[in-house]
Amino acid sequence: MAREQVFNFAAGPSVLPASALERARAEMLDYHGCGMSVMEMSHRSPMFQEIFDSTKQKLKDALCVPDTHEILFLQGGATLQFASIPMNLLEGGAADYAVTGNFSGKAAKEAKKYGTVRIAADTSETGHDRIPAQQELKLSEDAKYFYYCANNTIYGTEWQYVPQTKAPLVCDMSSDILSKPVDVSRYGLIYAGAQKNMSPAGLTVVILDKALCGREMPYTPEIMSYQTLVKHDSMLNTPPCWCIYMLSLVLDWLKEQGGVEGMEEIKRARAAKLYDVLDNSRLYKAHALPGSRSDMNVTFRTEDNELDAAFVKGAAARGLVNLKGHRITGGMRASLYNAMPMEGVDALIAYMKEFERDHV
Amino acid sequence: MAREQVFNFAAGPSVLPASALERARAEMLDYHGCGMSVMEMSHRSPMFQEIFDSTKQKLKDALCVPDTHEILFLQGGATLQFASIPMNLLEGGAADYAVTGNFSGKAAKEAKKYGTVRIAADTSETGHDRIPAQQELKLSEDAKYFYYCANNTIYGTEWQYVPQTKAPLVCDMSSDILSKPVDVSRYGLIYAGAQKNMSPAGLTVVILDKALCGREMPYTPEIMSYQTLVKHDSMLNTPPCWCIYMLSLVLDWLKEQGGVEGMEEIKRARAAKLYDVLDNSRLYKAHALPGSRSDMNVTFRTEDNELDAAFVKGAAARGLVNLKGHRITGGMRASLYNAMPMEGVDALIAYMKEFERDHV
Repeated sequence: MAREQVFNFAAGPSVLPASALERARAEMLDYHGCGMSVMEMSHRSPMFQEIFDSTKQKLKDALCVPDTHEILFLQGGATLQFASIPMNLLEGGAADYAVTGNFSGKAAKEAKKYGTVRIAADTSETGHDRIPAQQELKLSEDAKYFYYCANNTIYGTEWQYVPQTKAPLVCDMSSDILSKPVDVSRYGLIYAGAQKNMSPAGLTVVILDKALCGREMPYTPEIMSYQTLVKHDSMLNTPPCWCIYMLSLVLDWLKEQGGVEGMEEIKRARAAKLYDVLDNSRLYKAHALPGSRSDMNVTFRTEDNELDAAFVKGAAARGLVNLKGHRITGGMRASLYNAMPMEGVDALIAYMKEFERDHV
Repeated sequence: MAREQVFNFAAGPSVLPASALERARAEMLDYHGCGMSVMEMSHRSPMFQEIFDSTKQKLKDALCVPDTHEILFLQGGATLQFASIPMNLLEGGAADYAVTGNFSGKAAKEAKKYGTVRIAADTSETGHDRIPAQQELKLSEDAKYFYYCANNTIYGTEWQYVPQTKAPLVCDMSSDILSKPVDVSRYGLIYAGAQKNMSPAGLTVVILDKALCGREMPYTPEIMSYQTLVKHDSMLNTPPCWCIYMLSLVLDWLKEQGGVEGMEEIKRARAAKLYDVLDNSRLYKAHALPGSRSDMNVTFRTEDNELDAAFVKGAAARGLVNLKGHRITGGMRASLYNAMPMEGVDALIAYMKEFERDHV
């Protein structure tokens, strides 16, 4: 099957812009005439340093990161940040965690090893089908930070507002970073695994207020100390060079799409089309409640497990792949990350309507 | 400059087999007709699982890893292992560390956060120009493990024997893994950053005796617990998929070269040629003492800093790149990892002889 016939709805790792992959292919054996692949470059070479610096600058520009904040290119994924954040910011004290899905739940559990975790909200009772309102958040006076996950990949919910808190905001933006403008100055720390909207798996981006550095617990591994990482500009050891280079290519593509402002328009249009089908269907039911719905991950089901399986199988036969929902929720999930073309959504909608016609 | 005219002597990240890069390029936008790049595949998809499983099997075969040991594909580099090892194996007790270079020194320093570190050997007095003999090692009775770095990339020394110890051996093989046969059963834990002999930067391979699992300290981050990682077959979170795929291609190439046995012959021949030039030179002086010399990183100098700089500059003009020594040692370093072709060594030797003729 030719590449252009497949639309990949995977929740991450996921679809990348074809133009970025094509440039990577063209430069693969010989980057800009240097006779080497980016994969073969010393991370200490001027050539790689230029890639590193320009990627950082492009990301700084794309998200308007203020000079108070530092961008780190790390390894280990969200799961390592689950521990890094409390090790660096908790100082043995307490933090508020909003549990609106699987990953914020895991983050809260991990943080308990390093201090006191207060649950500011927990939407598990209704299957994490919504985001709590500001007035529902239980905020504690002495919290070192307030933690939340901006977009819940598994459940398909997304915070439509930035919480108002006294404590610094710490936010997992793994699945909606670069999909809309963000006022970075309002956050103490933003982090994101790159494998959804940014780059291949293996890179974790951390954007943190430098004023929060230097509070790590004594047993924090050196490679997890934000202060040390800032001091070494992410190069305490060898960074994930290839993923950083791929991010650079993705950021070039993003700029061509009108940056995060352009992306916000596109992602809204993409998701609105799909939710419209769900809300007017006699077969499909959206999992997330209006007002809490994610533009990145649209979760739905038919309320018949066998029919769900038939839907996923039939979709794959048409080149609409990876539509199976997470094992926790079941049903279907269409992840509509930045690089998903509108043609993919249209093809999915055409198939959904046909499937509904055949099964209602 | 065309690719084939450059020989990359970088200490890591470093040269990769051209055939592996070419296959990666060919499959880049469409892996085996699936319409996706490996960089876009869900790590939970059967297609990626197949890549993961076969890569692991190829590595198991290449190093004859016994069933008592598990192979992990992780992130974070050696520096994360500096903390993971004591967090998992020290149990608050003591371990013996042989400090024969920069990285073993860093590992010993990090381990002190988690227990008692006893220095079994320290070769810093003579600029880490040699490896201690077995009888020099100060081994303590209650050591939870004995730690050493098999090859010191910066100083160009390499252990020519496997230490005899009561405690389990823990070994950093970052810069000589896959360059020779290893009796894995003699080790409690072997680890290696992939960016020298295996794959692009961003993958860390750990091979550990499963009997050592389950001893982690209570505050060990979940993603650093060997027991948890073994249980989840390295997929507690998204692994560095692209690097694992690249390792698979490199292992295919390795097999064509006769595996680690074939590689050992080649690397010995490569290094012997170069040391022969050094030992018969009136200009160059090898840093490492005979009996301790590395086949992977050959360090030398002229004893004149300006001449060293001129050597490195002239070499680069000929396409012999990244020959500058580490900032700690100065001078020159030729890293001869698995993928360095003999033509590269021959070209370097021709240049060395010419340079000597012109400057003596």
